[in-house]
Amino acid sequence: MKKYCFGIDVGGTTIKCGLFHTDGHILDKWEITTRTEENGIHILPDIAETINRKIEERGLTKNEIEGIGLDIPGPVDAEGVCSIAVNLHWGRVEIVREMQKMTGIRTRAINDANAAALGECWKGGGAGHKNLIMVTLGTGIGGGVVVEGEVIAGAHGSGGEIGHVHVTEELTEPCNCGNVGCLEQVASATGIVRLAKMELEKRPDMQSVLRGRMLTAKDIWDAARNGDELADAVAEKFGLYLGRALAAFACVTDPEIFVIGGGVSNAGPIILEYVQKYYRQYAFPGCKDAVFALATLGNDAGMYGAAKLVI
Amino acid sequence: MKKYCFGIDVGGTTIKCGLFHTDGHILDKWEITTRTEENGIHILPDIAETINRKIEERGLTKNEIEGIGLDIPGPVDAEGVCSIAVNLHWGRVEIVREMQKMTGIRTRAINDANAAALGECWKGGGAGHKNLIMVTLGTGIGGGVVVEGEVIAGAHGSGGEIGHVHVTEELTEPCNCGNVGCLEQVASATGIVRLAKMELEKRPDMQSVLRGRMLTAKDIWDAARNGDELADAVAEKFGLYLGRALAAFACVTDPEIFVIGGGVSNAGPIILEYVQKYYRQYAFPGCKDAVFALATLGNDAGMYGAAKLVI
Repeated sequence: MKKYCFGIDVGGTTIKCGLFHTDGHILDKWEITTRTEENGIHILPDIAETINRKIEERGLTKNEIEGIGLDIPGPVDAEGVCSIAVNLHWGRVEIVREMQKMTGIRTRAINDANAAALGECWKGGGAGHKNLIMVTLGTGIGGGVVVEGEVIAGAHGSGGEIGHVHVTEELTEPCNCGNVGCLEQVASATGIVRLAKMELEKRPDMQSVLRGRMLTAKDIWDAARNGDELADAVAEKFGLYLGRALAAFACVTDPEIFVIGGGVSNAGPIILEYVQKYYRQYAFPGCKDAVFALATLGNDAGMYGAAKLVI
Repeated sequence: MKKYCFGIDVGGTTIKCGLFHTDGHILDKWEITTRTEENGIHILPDIAETINRKIEERGLTKNEIEGIGLDIPGPVDAEGVCSIAVNLHWGRVEIVREMQKMTGIRTRAINDANAAALGECWKGGGAGHKNLIMVTLGTGIGGGVVVEGEVIAGAHGSGGEIGHVHVTEELTEPCNCGNVGCLEQVASATGIVRLAKMELEKRPDMQSVLRGRMLTAKDIWDAARNGDELADAVAEKFGLYLGRALAAFACVTDPEIFVIGGGVSNAGPIILEYVQKYYRQYAFPGCKDAVFALATLGNDAGMYGAAKLVI
């Protein structure tokens, strides 16, 4: 194993770059802007340039670099080819081939949710475990499944697409994926707000601090923490949907630990309580001991996971 | 890779033994009785003896044997230790250590449902694929999940325990696992009969050949094939429960193919039609292309999978 590697997390606005010791220690961290103009043709050259410049700046040689791990917001196949990444304005891009050509350094590429799972498993909330399911609760729901230290990419690049498990017949409006009743529609940041609106409508006589205002997921967790009965009912429904879904996933890979991240997880341990309650109710007895933890790497999870990909 | 290996499928009544070329060709197949008396202490010595005798009978030497793969009806951990196997009258048994001691041949051990999945992936209904979910519909429901050619054993030996995903709130009686509303309770051979009884009760005025008799799963599929309206309704419910559950599992590992085996699958392609219909309705778009196939190895699947374990 050579001494250094790069972990590059490509987002729609910024690209987070990390120079790592291959022992897992991070040496340097910086950002560049994601230039999405002209179908994003500048993105990979910009990354190659910032890597080459960092190598020079640090007085390193390419012989000392084990590899470049790179994650993007979109599906990536086993050959490192992205079929489409809307937020980067990309159609089909041969990430690995192009990066290797421009840098002369071995490259591996991965989906961003899978990278976050790998990062949290390596250095974050799941550190010390080899079998993990990561749930990222943001505007949508991302996921990543790690088995024996390896991320499951899936036959069609859809491994860990756990936001799109069907969980309810109560909805009529379609999810972004085209199906109806997805976990993402009731347990993401926007999903929790949807649940709150439904509960407010269902219980017109119940007093609540949530009534008569624009809501965010944070408002709902704050109210639940302060004993608001309606907010508690919303949190229970969130816990039921997510906990029961995680119990279903446990039948498949039987993880040691579930790690919950994303903006919604900033509400803290209270969300784990609601999820665990229903997980334990529905999980197969052999899986009930799985541990729950909050993610700890925040926005750096993808960068860490990308680096781990080449170590 | 040496020239030969053994695949041994240990059941509660008989032990199926196979001598394989490590190129995948089976050379010999025979059975011995499972002696469960005295807490099953004769089982492993009996297997060692039949292997040693076969090696002698064929004029082979132990240097030509790559290994012994062995599957049992119970959980097996990564070190090849069984914690309990009720049908063998076993408590804790160090399968791998004991077999290696008695035979001098490298041994690996695995759960029987996982072995069946590996066998079907190697030489059966899933041949040519590396990512598969196998469902065995018998008295209960067994399962096995293969990712990149490897079976997922799980952190607690419960990988692939897909019969115990929660699928319905309609039941009140508990499953064998202690939970209520498991897939096994509505989609195994006994589960389909339960569904039929529920439908018969729910629709007292609907004529059906299923009415007023002792039922088996086969009766229900035969009636559905002959256009019996009530049997068709039962098959629809079976398809909904199983298809929707498989769609949930697809969010986790995104398989290329689902293989359906076990006694219920003897009903033939008709069961795939009902399952696929609901799978396609509920699956994440990226996973909808997964293929469905019937198992082809029958009772030999475990023996093939056990052999594959050491190849």
